[in-house]
Amino acid sequence: MNLRDVKTEVEELLDAYVQCLDDGRYEEWPDFFVEENPVYRIISRENHDRGLHLATMSCESRGMMEDRVVAIRNAVVYSPQYLRHLVGAVRVTGQEGDAYKIQSNYAVFNTMRNEETRVFNTGRYLDEVVFVGGAPKFSRKVVVYDTVQIPSMLVIPI
Amino acid sequence: MNLRDVKTEVEELLDAYVQCLDDGRYEEWPDFFVEENPVYRIISRENHDRGLHLATMSCESRGMMEDRVVAIRNAVVYSPQYLRHLVGAVRVTGQEGDAYKIQSNYAVFNTMRNEETRVFNTGRYLDEVVFVGGAPKFSRKVVVYDTVQIPSMLVIPI
Amino acid sequence: MNLRDVKTEVEELLDAYVQCLDDGRYEEWPDFFVEENPVYRIISRENHDRGLHLATMSCESRGMMEDRVVAIRNAVVYSPQYLRHLVGAVRVTGQEGDAYKIQSNYAVFNTMRNEETRVFNTGRYLDEVVFVGGAPKFSRKVVVYDTVQIPSMLVIPI
Repeated sequence: MNLRDVKTEVEELLDAYVQCLDDGRYEEWPDFFVEENPVYRIISRENHDRGLHLATMSCESRGMMEDRVVAIRNAVVYSPQYLRHLVGAVRVTGQEGDAYKIQSNYAVFNTMRNEETRVFNTGRYLDEVVFVGGAPKFSRKVVVYDTVQIPSMLVIPI
Repeated sequence: MNLRDVKTEVEELLDAYVQCLDDGRYEEWPDFFVEENPVYRIISRENHDRGLHLATMSCESRGMMEDRVVAIRNAVVYSPQYLRHLVGAVRVTGQEGDAYKIQSNYAVFNTMRNEETRVFNTGRYLDEVVFVGGAPKFSRKVVVYDTVQIPSMLVIPI
Repeated sequence: MNLRDVKTEVEELLDAYVQCLDDGRYEEWPDFFVEENPVYRIISRENHDRGLHLATMSCESRGMMEDRVVAIRNAVVYSPQYLRHLVGAVRVTGQEGDAYKIQSNYAVFNTMRNEETRVFNTGRYLDEVVFVGGAPKFSRKVVVYDTVQIPSMLVIPI
């Protein structure tokens, strides 16, 4: 598979992924990952750059992701907000075995009830994507966010 | 026409559309729509999700769009601002007759004179696109914005 | 070279360019430009629209760019911040000799230590791109930003 086709497929994966989150269809979120030992991690740029593994959120299986979704459904019921993602600068940066390494930039905006839309979070996605039966899936997704402070709402996947 | 080609064409349509708005060339705005019975609507996510049809702006013909442009030219003369759109996550979500259904995310930033640039509005475009003589045109464009409040400047198309 | 291939190549150039800046690898920044007489300019939309040439930053050679990088390394050491770019609406708008004229929208977000992420700057890139040994390079890059005020940090390339 040539790298430009990989990029096209991964962009479609990322587009579907962020629309899923923006629609609040969190139950479908784990489906974007491989079945076996997917890694999902949210970590600050500061910790990432220092090589620290102190993640704000860390899931190492589909089961942990599903638990996270249950937690979201319980936690955010009293503070509804709308999120909106933009993803850009998608680049295939390498290949390791059957996994493609992908880097991209993201920005997330949020709108709380009766408030103006604000910048919620920006950062980089450091992804590894494999093709399962022809369909791209994340085997690893690390969200490196630019803020030092942890936004209070970072209980949700980004 | 395969769906990946449709997506490429629609992305070019959307890119030209937002650059037209960002340049303030509102007189050209109706040209992005079909001649016959185009629909343009701006509606809050809350109303859209509830199935309410209470739109913030609604045009159902080119004539209504042209009237809107005249209104803009009269209304905004005293409060100049610059807008800047980013569109992402463009997806072809279906097909109905000769119309392709397209969903995308957008963010609009605005800069008032002597102020900092701010997030003006984020949301989704729910578009229907047909090809007229080979060129893509919107037969329907529904802008579903994330805020509950109506931004004061929402007299302008997004 | 057909224009859609040009667009694809230029998008990859832009994606690599913004990731370079976001990673803070400023020493690599001049490499995105041609060797001979590259132009890099940051100018406010107001000055640009009036035809004024009063630029906030102007480099007309690789040497000037390299000097700029040295200045950045000296200047920003006490106020670290993270930047994050999104680029959209990339369009090939013309061709002049062997140079392609490209227009795109950008938004830059910044995160100062212990602060929330904010919109730093939005605007347009007006680029001219040539292919050198098959690789796209900027022969000219003009950053037209939407604010009237000059952000204090505009010592850095965008």
